Amino acid sequence: MQHATKDKFSTLRLRRLGIDTYDEPVVYMRADCHVCRSEGFDAHSRVAIRVNGTTVIATLHVVTSDLLRRNEASLSDSAWTLLGAREGDEIAVSHPEPVESLSDVRAKVYGRRLDDDAIHAIVRDVAGKRYSDIHLSAFITACAGDRLDAAETIALTRAMVVVGERLAWNRAPIVDKHSVGGLPGNRTTPIVVSIAAAAGLTMPKTSSRAITSPAGTADTMETLAPIDLDIPAMRKVVEREGGCIVWGGAMHLSPADDILIRVERPLDLDSEGQMVASILSKKSAAGSTHVVIDMPVGATAKVRDRDSAVSLTRLLSDVGAAVGLQIRVVWTDGAQPVGRRIGPALEAHDVLAVLQGAPGAPADLRQRSLRLAAEILELGGAAAPGAGTTLAQTILDDGRAWRKFQAICEAQGGMRTPPRAPHARAVPAGQAGRIVSIDNRRLARIAKLAGAPSAPAAGLELHAPVGSTVDRGEPLFTVHAEAPGELAYALDYFAARPDIIVVEPHS
Amino acid sequence: MQHATKDKFSTLRLRRLGIDTYDEPVVYMRADCHVCRSEGFDAHSRVAIRVNGTTVIATLHVVTSDLLRRNEASLSDSAWTLLGAREGDEIAVSHPEPVESLSDVRAKVYGRRLDDDAIHAIVRDVAGKRYSDIHLSAFITACAGDRLDAAETIALTRAMVVVGERLAWNRAPIVDKHSVGGLPGNRTTPIVVSIAAAAGLTMPKTSSRAITSPAGTADTMETLAPIDLDIPAMRKVVEREGGCIVWGGAMHLSPADDILIRVERPLDLDSEGQMVASILSKKSAAGSTHVVIDMPVGATAKVRDRDSAVSLTRLLSDVGAAVGLQIRVVWTDGAQPVGRRIGPALEAHDVLAVLQGAPGAPADLRQRSLRLAAEILELGGAAAPGAGTTLAQTILDDGRAWRKFQAICEAQGGMRTPPRAPHARAVPAGQAGRIVSIDNRRLARIAKLAGAPSAPAAGLELHAPVGSTVDRGEPLFTVHAEAPGELAYALDYFAARPDIIVVEPHS
Repeated sequence: MQHATKDKFSTLRLRRLGIDTYDEPVVYMRADCHVCRSEGFDAHSRVAIRVNGTTVIATLHVVTSDLLRRNEASLSDSAWTLLGAREGDEIAVSHPEPVESLSDVRAKVYGRRLDDDAIHAIVRDVAGKRYSDIHLSAFITACAGDRLDAAETIALTRAMVVVGERLAWNRAPIVDKHSVGGLPGNRTTPIVVSIAAAAGLTMPKTSSRAITSPAGTADTMETLAPIDLDIPAMRKVVEREGGCIVWGGAMHLSPADDILIRVERPLDLDSEGQMVASILSKKSAAGSTHVVIDMPVGATAKVRDRDSAVSLTRLLSDVGAAVGLQIRVVWTDGAQPVGRRIGPALEAHDVLAVLQGAPGAPADLRQRSLRLAAEILELGGAAAPGAGTTLAQTILDDGRAWRKFQAICEAQGGMRTPPRAPHARAVPAGQAGRIVSIDNRRLARIAKLAGAPSAPAAGLELHAPVGSTVDRGEPLFTVHAEAPGELAYALDYFAARPDIIVVEPHS
Repeated sequence: MQHATKDKFSTLRLRRLGIDTYDEPVVYMRADCHVCRSEGFDAHSRVAIRVNGTTVIATLHVVTSDLLRRNEASLSDSAWTLLGAREGDEIAVSHPEPVESLSDVRAKVYGRRLDDDAIHAIVRDVAGKRYSDIHLSAFITACAGDRLDAAETIALTRAMVVVGERLAWNRAPIVDKHSVGGLPGNRTTPIVVSIAAAAGLTMPKTSSRAITSPAGTADTMETLAPIDLDIPAMRKVVEREGGCIVWGGAMHLSPADDILIRVERPLDLDSEGQMVASILSKKSAAGSTHVVIDMPVGATAKVRDRDSAVSLTRLLSDVGAAVGLQIRVVWTDGAQPVGRRIGPALEAHDVLAVLQGAPGAPADLRQRSLRLAAEILELGGAAAPGAGTTLAQTILDDGRAWRKFQAICEAQGGMRTPPRAPHARAVPAGQAGRIVSIDNRRLARIAKLAGAPSAPAAGLELHAPVGSTVDRGEPLFTVHAEAPGELAYALDYFAARPDIIVVEPHS
């Protein structure tokens, strides 16, 4: 039953109101317009809207004032862009077709296994934006808590690849890396890509912006070079330099994943199957063949203990093999942040220090980058087994990696200098002693309250890592912010939770 | 961390835009206002808003045009009403406190049992509107598929009662009835209340509007009398007449239930535990002591088979006993609609026919009403065990029930005549034969597409019940609508699914 036909009962004229609802498509209509009356639509109805030949499902918000005339409708900004709408365009509004795959979601809720067809149908409808947030949340919840088995995870990964764009490269191998996340400041990607490309490997890296963290690799990289390249521009960079570090968000690689992640974020549910499908669908769609996965393990990292690490590693390898990816998982220390700085520009300064071999460069970021680069060099065949570490170190120390990074930045549109924040305040230790633990999740929250990642210069600089000793009044960390309100929030949050950094007094 | 203090960083002035988002609280602010900038808010952020001393959590929609000035904010209509806002009021906007009970929801998702404290915390936050739709959906999904045990269901029922208003009556017993639903036209309540009250019992019935059905009892009753009474007005009716049939929606009895039901509707998940908590929390909060539950059982009703009926009956009785309710469950035929008509006013005509003893009154509606009334008369002590049916029949047949119904309608504000629809079309049988089955769910969908329940005169009149025979071209049913567009939808839907009514040709 699709009634999105042009007739006098169902069409209105578009007028832009300018309301940004993020990526939830909303249509605005008057309660007393002929469409609402003849179709029986109420506020919060799900409706099918058709503009310029494209149909999407939107949520109806009813205008009860004179913001719109009776023959007018409007769209939220993202829907306006998605449909290529212009002022005065005709919009047809109708009852949406029933979303048949929701019966598969219900089956999963009731504990049944999903077969390949059911998973493909669900992912197709998710990517087609036919699910409301309520439906997306139900699907994510039904799959969480390890309710997806390996076969379902493989089907989910394949389905997520199939519904999006796919990159193909006329060379092999295509190496890639991914970090499972949960560790602030773990910004190895620009260094690893530079080393791998300098060693002659092809590493077209697409990165994401922060989801729950104070900075994603894309956020950090954006303070160093343009990252919003389309696929042809990205290809040119890779052909010239062997590598790139660009934002993957506009490339429509595994678009269902982007939609699911937006809803997963406020739920904060750990789901092995969905995490694996998310990671590997992006890699497969990007045309990668050999992938090194950095898995920080630690009490406050995303992977909290050895058992979880073993189980997640097995699933990544099995699903990777099923979708044609060679996977190598590297367990790394997840006990505390990497580098000393958290936040887009602050992390960029750490990256530059390592690439330039600066005296104050964070040793942990350097070591992690070398370890991951070594694995990639060996997995990709640029170094013999066991010879990766030496090669990676040589390329970093003799300046080849730094030169390659500058060349990549230039190819992406020109290198930039990361900004510095106008507001900064140091937080002193309340007592003298040894730092015995740091809560990474809450440390990340301080950086976010300070404005990261949307304020690129905002974040946090850690002065006293775990194991170091401080005197009373000596700075534990410095908060950086672009606005005084954000600085105050971040400091208030820590003041209420001083045990984020535990200082054990000298005995 | 609650920062909803009045300071220059966080306050704006309210201006009404007039946008109805149903009951999702939305706040509108400009992207470039000082609050968004200093707080780092983006579109779709969850924010705490404080107006006139009351704080609620809302979703942020960002105005990217000149709809608002930089120092202005607006609220969706329901939030505006909830906060008692006026033009120019000061609104403080801040980061919301973390919703701690979400960790209990996550625990449930991972398969853990919830203890009483966890369930109370969740229900308190749901009733306090601190959950987004995404969170509500996750909670509902985590409890669906029989993942709530009896103890959890008891705790959920108690918690839902505690967070809302509770009615207390200075007499006993207080009898009540509830129908599990899923059966179009099952409009026994006005008849049962009239019989029970005429027999001297106290039956203060609060009913709901339709959730997924073409008419709720409140929708039907509204075509016969005012139903939107507050608690004092309702008390007056009950004191005078012994019974009432009013809308319970504005009485804040089990408000968490209303919020959960809004999200359950688009999910369409069967959850025994939640259904029982929903039914019994409303009854307990209404001060009922003895409750008869009408449970239609049939392939296309809500309770589909005997096993489900047994299990649901046991849970209703156990949970009822735990919260101090005497429950009697009556299994009834769920194979086809009750009465001949579906839709608010159409069902009201059926109700009137039974009460008046009109010659064409639907026998099934009469029989069901008598059966339920008999159970209530016995459970409430107005009739000896086994004597309920005779007493109910006498009260109905001698006109006492009809006089009581009219008295109740007058006491509620005056009796009304149900409207008749301006548009009606009969749908003829495609072939001669015997009606072997009717799909109740899809028949209900036809009535909804015709405009029911928001168009009170809309709906459907069934001419050929299961077991009857029709000639080719003889009408199967007539669709009633208040607008031609709605009539067309309803007819199109049936045209595409003629097997909603299966006609077996004569052999």
